[in-house]
Amino acid sequence: MVIILRPDATPEQRHAVESRMRELGFQIVLAPSSPRVVMAAVGEGSMPPLEEIRALPGVAEARPIPEPFKLASRSFRETTSVIRIGNVDIGGPSVVIMAGPCTIESEEQMVRTAAAVRSAGATVMRGGAFKPRTSPYSFQGLGEEGLKLIRRVADSQGLLVISEIMDKSQISLMDRYVDIFQVGARNMQNYALLRELGKVERPVLIKRGLAATVDEWLMSAEYVISGGNDRVIVCERGVRAYETYTRNTLDLNAVAVAKAISHLPVIVDPSHAAGVRDKVVPLARAAIAAGADGLLVEVHYAPEQAICDGQQSLYPEQFAALTAQIRLIAEAVGRRF
Amino acid sequence: MVIILRPDATPEQRHAVESRMRELGFQIVLAPSSPRVVMAAVGEGSMPPLEEIRALPGVAEARPIPEPFKLASRSFRETTSVIRIGNVDIGGPSVVIMAGPCTIESEEQMVRTAAAVRSAGATVMRGGAFKPRTSPYSFQGLGEEGLKLIRRVADSQGLLVISEIMDKSQISLMDRYVDIFQVGARNMQNYALLRELGKVERPVLIKRGLAATVDEWLMSAEYVISGGNDRVIVCERGVRAYETYTRNTLDLNAVAVAKAISHLPVIVDPSHAAGVRDKVVPLARAAIAAGADGLLVEVHYAPEQAICDGQQSLYPEQFAALTAQIRLIAEAVGRRF
Amino acid sequence: MVIILRPDATPEQRHAVESRMRELGFQIVLAPSSPRVVMAAVGEGSMPPLEEIRALPGVAEARPIPEPFKLASRSFRETTSVIRIGNVDIGGPSVVIMAGPCTIESEEQMVRTAAAVRSAGATVMRGGAFKPRTSPYSFQGLGEEGLKLIRRVADSQGLLVISEIMDKSQISLMDRYVDIFQVGARNMQNYALLRELGKVERPVLIKRGLAATVDEWLMSAEYVISGGNDRVIVCERGVRAYETYTRNTLDLNAVAVAKAISHLPVIVDPSHAAGVRDKVVPLARAAIAAGADGLLVEVHYAPEQAICDGQQSLYPEQFAALTAQIRLIAEAVGRRF
Amino acid sequence: MVIILRPDATPEQRHAVESRMRELGFQIVLAPSSPRVVMAAVGEGSMPPLEEIRALPGVAEARPIPEPFKLASRSFRETTSVIRIGNVDIGGPSVVIMAGPCTIESEEQMVRTAAAVRSAGATVMRGGAFKPRTSPYSFQGLGEEGLKLIRRVADSQGLLVISEIMDKSQISLMDRYVDIFQVGARNMQNYALLRELGKVERPVLIKRGLAATVDEWLMSAEYVISGGNDRVIVCERGVRAYETYTRNTLDLNAVAVAKAISHLPVIVDPSHAAGVRDKVVPLARAAIAAGADGLLVEVHYAPEQAICDGQQSLYPEQFAALTAQIRLIAEAVGRRF
Repeated sequence: MVIILRPDATPEQRHAVESRMRELGFQIVLAPSSPRVVMAAVGEGSMPPLEEIRALPGVAEARPIPEPFKLASRSFRETTSVIRIGNVDIGGPSVVIMAGPCTIESEEQMVRTAAAVRSAGATVMRGGAFKPRTSPYSFQGLGEEGLKLIRRVADSQGLLVISEIMDKSQISLMDRYVDIFQVGARNMQNYALLRELGKVERPVLIKRGLAATVDEWLMSAEYVISGGNDRVIVCERGVRAYETYTRNTLDLNAVAVAKAISHLPVIVDPSHAAGVRDKVVPLARAAIAAGADGLLVEVHYAPEQAICDGQQSLYPEQFAALTAQIRLIAEAVGRRF
Repeated sequence: MVIILRPDATPEQRHAVESRMRELGFQIVLAPSSPRVVMAAVGEGSMPPLEEIRALPGVAEARPIPEPFKLASRSFRETTSVIRIGNVDIGGPSVVIMAGPCTIESEEQMVRTAAAVRSAGATVMRGGAFKPRTSPYSFQGLGEEGLKLIRRVADSQGLLVISEIMDKSQISLMDRYVDIFQVGARNMQNYALLRELGKVERPVLIKRGLAATVDEWLMSAEYVISGGNDRVIVCERGVRAYETYTRNTLDLNAVAVAKAISHLPVIVDPSHAAGVRDKVVPLARAAIAAGADGLLVEVHYAPEQAICDGQQSLYPEQFAALTAQIRLIAEAVGRRF
Repeated sequence: MVIILRPDATPEQRHAVESRMRELGFQIVLAPSSPRVVMAAVGEGSMPPLEEIRALPGVAEARPIPEPFKLASRSFRETTSVIRIGNVDIGGPSVVIMAGPCTIESEEQMVRTAAAVRSAGATVMRGGAFKPRTSPYSFQGLGEEGLKLIRRVADSQGLLVISEIMDKSQISLMDRYVDIFQVGARNMQNYALLRELGKVERPVLIKRGLAATVDEWLMSAEYVISGGNDRVIVCERGVRAYETYTRNTLDLNAVAVAKAISHLPVIVDPSHAAGVRDKVVPLARAAIAAGADGLLVEVHYAPEQAICDGQQSLYPEQFAALTAQIRLIAEAVGRRF
Repeated sequence: MVIILRPDATPEQRHAVESRMRELGFQIVLAPSSPRVVMAAVGEGSMPPLEEIRALPGVAEARPIPEPFKLASRSFRETTSVIRIGNVDIGGPSVVIMAGPCTIESEEQMVRTAAAVRSAGATVMRGGAFKPRTSPYSFQGLGEEGLKLIRRVADSQGLLVISEIMDKSQISLMDRYVDIFQVGARNMQNYALLRELGKVERPVLIKRGLAATVDEWLMSAEYVISGGNDRVIVCERGVRAYETYTRNTLDLNAVAVAKAISHLPVIVDPSHAAGVRDKVVPLARAAIAAGADGLLVEVHYAPEQAICDGQQSLYPEQFAALTAQIRLIAEAVGRRF
């Protein structure tokens, strides 16, 4: 239930409302940065008649949140959340581009790729230090050494850092190096991890699971928000389908749906959806045209030498040409880049 | 196998090449409007060594067509086919918009909708006279009366007509009224129908089946082309997936793939993919951004009164706002509208 | 709506009930072989209050049919329909096995395969004379010559014949040779064909489309039944999924669901679901264990010589071993074979 | 690569073979309980010519393992692994039934359910103490209190215990109470967890992810085995599909495939695949008919009172009737129960 107080509600009235809801078994969460006091009562309490709540002194409005995700829903927060990190706003008027290699490999790779993505307009650098590989025999990432490298290189270019976390035991280590925690598709329902990420200060980007519904995806966001961290970004990266020409099938329906029912910023990863370089470009353009708040793209200064996912990494020139088109498309849909 | 003759090849040399391939069990199909003679040898013949064919007098080049669809492949025709109907080019530099109601209902509906879509930039009017309905008890369309109506209204607005054909027995009737035969998703593999459409003069638009692979979709085009009609357009309209917020999942990966491996124009129907009006707009924009050659969109002058699919039909104002954005996006990707 | 008359209802009362329902815009269909008069009022009429109908003289009970398929639902007919053809009952206590090659190829092939399947317990022979092939260049079947052959061979072994129909124009030809018309997965929603099959006397087996829901599958049956032919069998043959080890994914959930909500006999085709021979056997056993009324299995006396689908055709010995196991499983679930 | 030594190979020869493979970058894993020394060389080493290895003294045979999962493949171990726990063999001639409630709720619930499942033939009791719930607001399980309860109740009935683990931090706690660690579908690719489970002594049952391929599923098993724990069981529990009558679609193709390419025991969970009680029974029968090594079934002494998944839990009488049928089906396919 969302409860909105009158502008002239007193602290005592607010306290009384909160007490009543807690008594009924709910937790109270306040919507941030709202001109009026907007609170959500969430949890497994027993829902009272709306009339009872509306009749409490100081209450302007009370209505149910129909979605199973409460704090992530637009029924609770009507405007898209803008997540500010440094001087980058995710979810604001400008679309945001996060780019870089699949895996952190070497100083040269990171320096050259960072320079390329930065000059093409990216503001966040991606790169994996812990890699969820299907095979236990594949390279699993450079670990902390990789994190140090991406931090140093990103700082030198004025870029933010996003990197994937695979287990809650990595939180304190990664917290020292990254600006955004990325939860991969395979861990979208690793609830032990999500709960812990509810306690961190940094934003969390949650990729959609390979066969997750939009509701399940947003429920994973709800785990983090209900744990106390409302700076959550969700990322569509393609769902599993039967077609074999591409790795996965990018689901832009889901982007349009998520934007409509949730206030969270929605980012699109066209690289994993396509799985092959020349399909990444049209899908990236399509994502911005569909209303996504940004992109997460694999770029490598020399894709043919990449340890993993080289076939889906863009060449720097391709990426620069793409961002030039993105600029025009963003404007066509009322955004900036 | 594609065989390209030398510019100076004589008619006798050409005849000898064709004879040899027929002897081996192949049919010969010529690529239209090519500066040089380009022929495809298709069928279940026994493939000779390439060297043998390359050594024939007058032959400049011979190479296999790796795709299972031969005549629909870019290996056979390198440039996108442009299908001219009246003064409309489908597959050319301009994107083409086909719009109108799901079902032809009445004079007033058609006149008002036609005026609206025309003024917003559509050049082809859609509307069903024979409707494939899941239930035998649902309205099945106005039949010939509907065809007469759409023809008259479209003519008065200078629009072309596209309408769905459900069975080969309807060909001669529909041929009198429509400019483009539309094969629906449910009939994508109705081979008896496809074979007969190989014998007509008019273009055929083939919608992708609900769970068809790109190869199967293009093989259905191959049925029509190999029957003698090379004016085929393919149309992506969403695939069946598990998500329930929208009717189907628009697959723009498939658009990017089809454009890369086939020379056929690729159109997108965002209306059936979304199933709900407010999701049609972002998907339509995304389709053009992804490189589609046009759109097939449901528009109704009064969607709430529509007999079918009203919830996914755009209001005229929405459609006009959409086409204004389409114009900018088309330019961003090097097209016109 | 189902309306059940009292045992002592007079012809006049029955007539009055029917008249009233027709007046309201419904068609009346009688449930066959029921001790009491049970009628369904179907179509797009306007539903009256149940009380009104229950109050009509002679009416024992009236209740809505909640399913979109009315005549195919168990709400209309409570017991499984038994379809008798010659001395074979489909849907009765005994499971029925239909077996034979994918395609009718030759006298020797048919004679040897027929003898093999018959001695292992099959009572219906399958074999295609018109083949829906993905490629227009593939062998399309022997046509009438094939039909003559399967009829002659089946007769000599005392077997019934089932063969696939691809277009309504083939009905009168095929009607001379087959006992059961088979509608393939690709034509499950070829409504022009289904409507015409509503007018034939012979039973119709409808395969489930590659991505059809159970409701859509049963709605296709409803097309045939509402057209006048209530001898319909439905056949599960695997749905399209993302796994590549097998051709399709057999959906036995759908068998359990269809048996629960419909009175139609449900047959399973494990051959197309598996696509590889050694997986056909476990799936066939599973189908009977799940409660299917029979199987449609590809068997060839020499699979390695088959023109098509050889890799999924059972060897005669494999088939005989399978039917021996089927006998025990049928008994375990209260059936016979 | 699998390397099989000659019966008369000396310890020095064996040592030399192992050294050579380690030198090339491989790890060596021995197949347990094989009459001859059978070793797999796994990892990212550079594969030498087979001839080189075959020529080493003492080597009888060397061949590649074509599957991406090496230690889980039948190419490495030809006979199905039998996992003995107490006096229960999983993967042996007898099928094994694991049954119990979704969630551990209370003493009465556990005692009454345990007695019921035991008397019907189950040998392992299931019950969740840590529940992966889609919503953060839903009941998350009794935790250690629940584990104590299931252990005590199972012991009193002579049953083994299986329970789900959600995070590697729970290993030492759960190790004190359970006989089998269950990894849920949502955690199938939680590699941090799988790696740690490679170090425990107890068997691990890995459920297939909602959209996992058979290869990915077996690769998750490979993570555990390559970590040192070869007592792995895999469990099919339905994949996500578009049908809405049931929760998921049971994929018995995958059971047949996994049995063919892997030596691991394969168990089926029909309860989550069906999601509704009356469909669980036919699917359970089908699983055994398809060759599964056992079942994991939800049973509750009073399903209508269950905290979660009550609608898919069997009544004790239903379960007893099911196991009576399972007995006959197991015999029909050459197994016992």
